[in-house]
Amino acid sequence: MNPQEPTTFYAVNAFTGEPLPIAFPVHGEQEVNQAASAAQNVAREFRQLSNAKRASLLCSIASELEVKSEEIVARAHLETALPEARLSGEIGRTASQLRLFAEVVSSGNHHQAIFDTPNPDRQPLPKPDIRRQQIAIGPVAVFGASNFPLAFSTAGGDTASALAAGCPVIVKGHTAHPGTSQLVAECIEAALEKECLPQAIFTLLQGNKRALGQALVTHPKIKGVGFTGSVGGGRALFNLAQQRPEPIPFYGELGAINPTFILPSAIRANASLAEEFVASMTLGCGQFCTKPGVVFVLNSPETQAFIEIAQGLIRQQSTATLLTQGIRETYESEVDKRASETGINVTRSEQAEVTNVAPALFVTDSKNWRKNPQWEEEIFGPQSLIVICEDFDDMLKLSDSLTGSLTATLHATAEDEEQAKQLLPSLEEIAGRLVFNGWPTGVEVGYAMVHGGPYPASTNSASTSVGAEAIHRWLRPVAYQALPESLLPDSLKASNPLGIQRAIDGSVSQ
Amino acid sequence: MNPQEPTTFYAVNAFTGEPLPIAFPVHGEQEVNQAASAAQNVAREFRQLSNAKRASLLCSIASELEVKSEEIVARAHLETALPEARLSGEIGRTASQLRLFAEVVSSGNHHQAIFDTPNPDRQPLPKPDIRRQQIAIGPVAVFGASNFPLAFSTAGGDTASALAAGCPVIVKGHTAHPGTSQLVAECIEAALEKECLPQAIFTLLQGNKRALGQALVTHPKIKGVGFTGSVGGGRALFNLAQQRPEPIPFYGELGAINPTFILPSAIRANASLAEEFVASMTLGCGQFCTKPGVVFVLNSPETQAFIEIAQGLIRQQSTATLLTQGIRETYESEVDKRASETGINVTRSEQAEVTNVAPALFVTDSKNWRKNPQWEEEIFGPQSLIVICEDFDDMLKLSDSLTGSLTATLHATAEDEEQAKQLLPSLEEIAGRLVFNGWPTGVEVGYAMVHGGPYPASTNSASTSVGAEAIHRWLRPVAYQALPESLLPDSLKASNPLGIQRAIDGSVSQ
Repeated sequence: MNPQEPTTFYAVNAFTGEPLPIAFPVHGEQEVNQAASAAQNVAREFRQLSNAKRASLLCSIASELEVKSEEIVARAHLETALPEARLSGEIGRTASQLRLFAEVVSSGNHHQAIFDTPNPDRQPLPKPDIRRQQIAIGPVAVFGASNFPLAFSTAGGDTASALAAGCPVIVKGHTAHPGTSQLVAECIEAALEKECLPQAIFTLLQGNKRALGQALVTHPKIKGVGFTGSVGGGRALFNLAQQRPEPIPFYGELGAINPTFILPSAIRANASLAEEFVASMTLGCGQFCTKPGVVFVLNSPETQAFIEIAQGLIRQQSTATLLTQGIRETYESEVDKRASETGINVTRSEQAEVTNVAPALFVTDSKNWRKNPQWEEEIFGPQSLIVICEDFDDMLKLSDSLTGSLTATLHATAEDEEQAKQLLPSLEEIAGRLVFNGWPTGVEVGYAMVHGGPYPASTNSASTSVGAEAIHRWLRPVAYQALPESLLPDSLKASNPLGIQRAIDGSVSQ
Repeated sequence: MNPQEPTTFYAVNAFTGEPLPIAFPVHGEQEVNQAASAAQNVAREFRQLSNAKRASLLCSIASELEVKSEEIVARAHLETALPEARLSGEIGRTASQLRLFAEVVSSGNHHQAIFDTPNPDRQPLPKPDIRRQQIAIGPVAVFGASNFPLAFSTAGGDTASALAAGCPVIVKGHTAHPGTSQLVAECIEAALEKECLPQAIFTLLQGNKRALGQALVTHPKIKGVGFTGSVGGGRALFNLAQQRPEPIPFYGELGAINPTFILPSAIRANASLAEEFVASMTLGCGQFCTKPGVVFVLNSPETQAFIEIAQGLIRQQSTATLLTQGIRETYESEVDKRASETGINVTRSEQAEVTNVAPALFVTDSKNWRKNPQWEEEIFGPQSLIVICEDFDDMLKLSDSLTGSLTATLHATAEDEEQAKQLLPSLEEIAGRLVFNGWPTGVEVGYAMVHGGPYPASTNSASTSVGAEAIHRWLRPVAYQALPESLLPDSLKASNPLGIQRAIDGSVSQ
């Protein structure tokens, strides 16, 4: 590190822009080396730990978070300007996410045990005994997100799923909420101590220099990366991860406009559709990765009414405090730029305060949408764009031309079923999750959730960063050929001491 | 294409180095554009085709291969110098691989259907109905391998698994066997016709210019790549795939030295161990990706005897015709270079013919091994290296320092069980498959096989390129939230018309 550079940095009060007390260290290459070496030293012990013990660690972290909830919420509120009720809810979500992964790892089914029964008499060659399971990949780096200081940060889904898999974790805390990260890290440290596990299983690194993230992603002892953030930052780190002598998996959730398609019958059937739309696009001040950023409608009288109600609601919206000054500046300049472009109309909230931003709703038609591919880029914050299609064929064609998103939403009734059936295949091809007659904001943490999708929604569309399946990002398969019972891992022993599901010769037995 | 460049190329007789009759077109960017656009045009139809129909296509391809077996074997023999019996066996393996994927896709379990049961009464928010399945990613490029002109080429494992998943396939035939590729492609074309499916589902492109592979990997309509080949060539294409505006999964199986560890009791217990070793390292003229390229032994009298027997067998080996002149030249120059280095001893086959190569066995000790990291690089062809470790601790330390391999092998008896237990965790961490008291050559095609491993064995260690699980490389998950039965895909309908396995709220039901 350059000796002239500051060795500490401060959190910023998101409401006032003033620094908050308590300085945080600016970590760099040296701390990455230490943390990665320490993580590597405990990686084998941690991956071989019993599933029950890892489940217990996850539950302990959840409990510690709940105990410290008040302090964490208060600090996160100052650092992010997110409402306390929302942050309390996020503590709950983070804890229940940890407990879901405890359940997943307790079941042992994440090993995905598969057996091929041997046949010594097979001609021309005997069929060997082959059994396969999944094992942890090694130390993992996790990048905290700005918009979910708890659920997608220090003890968020990436960390929970990686610890469940048996990977030590090094978190790079987001600069927007270092105090929150610190408090959450203390919960994890306390849980490790309670469970008599080495502290090196988890390390929080902080700092406001790009070199920290770069050093983490390129460190030879780091074997995988979980990232939630912008397309620009995420892509730069993805590139580094792929250019390493040993490329590693980089699970980045980068950006999405989450297209929504509204067929006329749905507007007629749901009087509060416009209200629901405005509520979804302004939820969390429009800082959700699942915000409906573009809405395709058909040119019809119902649509006109829908747009007018939405515009009316936008005018009445309160202004919003965004997570950071940087996010506010980007939002304002991008909204102003878009508003100044040709063929697009903007409605903004009429209430304005200096440090806050005004929610904005754009309206255009499909002709202008096609001429302006830059409108497909996500603007983080409380804005959205309605695109009026000439007719259903026009809408269908547009649906086929969109880039990847986390979600795609369809509003329709039985009346429009034929059109819905024509749209669905396009929506499957561009998104990780299809939502029917609902809104994409609000990501359920369960077994079936997919929070991912074609690039740039995810750098790896075969994965999800939310839900039980997220554990598979940190596992890789190993086959064992002809090993005696005494040398096989428990998950593959004939006696099945873990009592797990196994697939034998192509079918699952319990 | 530069107008001065030849528009055709010839196959080479692997025995004589002379061109074989019949010219093949040199395809380039234009043919890639045509094939990728055509593939994209049929991609949706093909992914939505019933599983039964796709299974039927795979079985038809297998039958066509068997019908044309004699002609294919004769041509492949000329192009590769591989024995006809081996090639006939490879036809059988290729056909049974296609039939395994027919079985996999018929079961419908590759959709990996997962359900979360809704709960409208949950507080504070209702729990939505979420169901998840896997769908095909779109058109896929497959690169044929030199060393398996059938099982890892035009209709090999990558093509079979991609077609099973529902992805159209464009194969870049290997320049070493264009006639074989052409004959196999005709079988696939005939099968498509028999099944009344569009020809655009499969295209073979040929040519001896690098630009062809580069154009394929960078084409925006290509959504994934399967590759088997060298570290250099594979890594260059991997880099291109990751640098695209939309990065795509690149499943490359690049290189491995397949370390083998022999404990003294195993030498005492198996009088033919040295013979088995020499047979494995020279199988297919040492051109198997699973060849045991380095053998770690302990300094003991048994070991000395083992080495002497192996050296004796090497001296008596026939010389071997390698696949291509390029492979022969590389083999010879690398073996000569290694033989000239300090601290290493070489034994070669005494029979030499001008166009053939002599099998070679190197011996060194762990001290020299540590000083020469270049010896960890794979040399393609009939050679291997025995490393004598000072004692078991020395062997254990070395096992922890190795780079990724497809396989790791351990020879031991119950007598050495404690040492075996100490070695296994290292072996799990460096390989995709552990072999006990056997040899890594010979990769069973089944449900549990893992043919992959940490880089450079694979560019994606979470996957396998052989066995039923290989289908997952060409699928990605999609979640469906609150879709009515009429709009859900069959794999997720409550009525389960496909009769497939589903995991409901965390446990599998049939």
